[in-house]
Amino acid sequence: MTWERLGHSRRVSYPHQELLDYITGEGMPEDAIEWYEGNLDYNVPGGKLNRGISVVGTAEIIKGTPLTDDEYLKAAVLGWDIELLQAFFLVSDDMMDSSITRRGQPCWYRVPKVGQIAINDSFMLEAAIYYLLKKHFRGETYYVDVLELFLETTFQTKMGQLIDLITAPEDEVDLSKFSLKKHSLIVICKTAYYFYLPVALAMYMSHVPQSYPSGTQTIEPYALAKSILIPLGEYFQIQDDFLDFSGTPEQIGKIGTDILDNKCSWCVNTALAVCTPKQRRVLDENYGRKDSECERRVKEVFESPEVNLRKRYGVYEEKVYGELVAMIGEIPEVEGKSTLKREVFKSLRDKIYKRTK
Amino acid sequence: MTWERLGHSRRVSYPHQELLDYITGEGMPEDAIEWYEGNLDYNVPGGKLNRGISVVGTAEIIKGTPLTDDEYLKAAVLGWDIELLQAFFLVSDDMMDSSITRRGQPCWYRVPKVGQIAINDSFMLEAAIYYLLKKHFRGETYYVDVLELFLETTFQTKMGQLIDLITAPEDEVDLSKFSLKKHSLIVICKTAYYFYLPVALAMYMSHVPQSYPSGTQTIEPYALAKSILIPLGEYFQIQDDFLDFSGTPEQIGKIGTDILDNKCSWCVNTALAVCTPKQRRVLDENYGRKDSECERRVKEVFESPEVNLRKRYGVYEEKVYGELVAMIGEIPEVEGKSTLKREVFKSLRDKIYKRTK
Repeated sequence: MTWERLGHSRRVSYPHQELLDYITGEGMPEDAIEWYEGNLDYNVPGGKLNRGISVVGTAEIIKGTPLTDDEYLKAAVLGWDIELLQAFFLVSDDMMDSSITRRGQPCWYRVPKVGQIAINDSFMLEAAIYYLLKKHFRGETYYVDVLELFLETTFQTKMGQLIDLITAPEDEVDLSKFSLKKHSLIVICKTAYYFYLPVALAMYMSHVPQSYPSGTQTIEPYALAKSILIPLGEYFQIQDDFLDFSGTPEQIGKIGTDILDNKCSWCVNTALAVCTPKQRRVLDENYGRKDSECERRVKEVFESPEVNLRKRYGVYEEKVYGELVAMIGEIPEVEGKSTLKREVFKSLRDKIYKRTK
Repeated sequence: MTWERLGHSRRVSYPHQELLDYITGEGMPEDAIEWYEGNLDYNVPGGKLNRGISVVGTAEIIKGTPLTDDEYLKAAVLGWDIELLQAFFLVSDDMMDSSITRRGQPCWYRVPKVGQIAINDSFMLEAAIYYLLKKHFRGETYYVDVLELFLETTFQTKMGQLIDLITAPEDEVDLSKFSLKKHSLIVICKTAYYFYLPVALAMYMSHVPQSYPSGTQTIEPYALAKSILIPLGEYFQIQDDFLDFSGTPEQIGKIGTDILDNKCSWCVNTALAVCTPKQRRVLDENYGRKDSECERRVKEVFESPEVNLRKRYGVYEEKVYGELVAMIGEIPEVEGKSTLKREVFKSLRDKIYKRTK
């Protein structure tokens, strides 16, 4: 697994060997080293790597000229650190959600002999992040900022997961706990922060300062980036929720199961906000049941003239897209390679707009 | 729960409210705030608090005069951070070990409605550590050292837990995986680092430098402290293992279950290293079985003239005590309040030597 397959000419394999060398140096016995290797190989490299690639892309846009080999390596390590963070969450979330498969293979805790050890394995994926940060960034002025950003993003994600777990347990449907507000909170914590994270990391490694002047204004580039990327990430997740309902298996590469799984999705929350009392009863009685007839009834409500999710989604998408265009257009651009560029956000926005998979 | 009950005249309650205020400020819904409060209250304050108290005690010894209120608060926050780290491990370890009770109450994951959510709850205990560090130490020169120390201790602990889990799974006895070397590794990772952690934290907050001169020598106080506290911690755990076998319930306040639970204890590893082939067969056939007759046969081997654990433990204890006395006596003491003092180690050593509970 290298960056090469992602269209980059330089290769930065995922930092597997550095981690194994570290624990070997700490005197770990052979069977434990093999175990850790199995954990890393199974859980880290198989994702879409979008977030990791985003660090490299953002650093290139901010710099304006190609990255040096050292800069490229740094961006790649930060990218792999995001993938490690993701792997840490996926391994543990799959246990809490009783998931069956992940990335086309059985969830790690369901692999023979793993079981509950997966809890510890998820911690060891997390711990790897901070080992790599120390090794590659200890001497950098922005080291502590990067540490804090990973730690705070972790706290945010765990808060989102907690709200999700107590709002939408798979085995106990109670739609009165749902609301668009809770949906928004869960999404901001669990997804939207991952749009800010790679961009902010690239900004730190590009030495973008906490503030700089633009004419008579003072720009706070990190707060500004967050104010755009959180709504962008929320848009991405709402789209994801909508595609789970509306996308064909050919489009989205899977069969949507949010209705069956009692997911606190944008779709059901929107329906709950606008449906008739009669439709509400249909949702209460049929949502989150592992039964395709129940699922059909819920979809009927979603497609009804009163709810009309397809139309509401279309309206939402145009509105948020327009807002993003406006916000991005208002970013003050100043000369200099360590400042924020509109292009960072445009490319992310245009990858998402009207995507169908 | 305050420090007052520990004989300190100043009160620093465990920083419960700061954490709840933080997540409230982040917009978390009421049921999630209540859940987090339940998690914190159930899992954080009920320990013996030895490690936390050790931060205060060490800081006082290094300073030589009473701590100011600000210093006291800082030491207390670091102490509570150790308790949070401990709570994080206990909640997750209890799940992996299928434990039943902890500190006299059901393990958190066995509390109704908690279940697998305890995985996320353990992460939220961990995340609290870094929030408190940032809040109370962000401006300190030693902030990054303290961050790294917590992160590295976490990695160490997780490595120890991995070795432990794959060496001594509760349901699959295989004594050929055991050895005194593996025991030592597990103990160093899982226990001994917790003797270094509070002392090193107190040293950082007392501004003890990375090195300082003593006559013609250069002292590296952190490495020196570690070189004493790791063996001290190992001694503590070996003693704990021995007391599980030899201590009466009246002494140790519980009934030892290491033999029944297939624990990779100092006792069985010592026996394995010196027993006859016939005794080895008895151990293979009886260790780790949930059966009091099997336990009795194992204990018979431990008490046999060939193994004679009581004598071997006595020899070990005198030897390690002598080594600790020598090492501590050789610490070069120099004037000045931010340097290492022998008293830090003496008080810890003497709390452990020949303890019977």
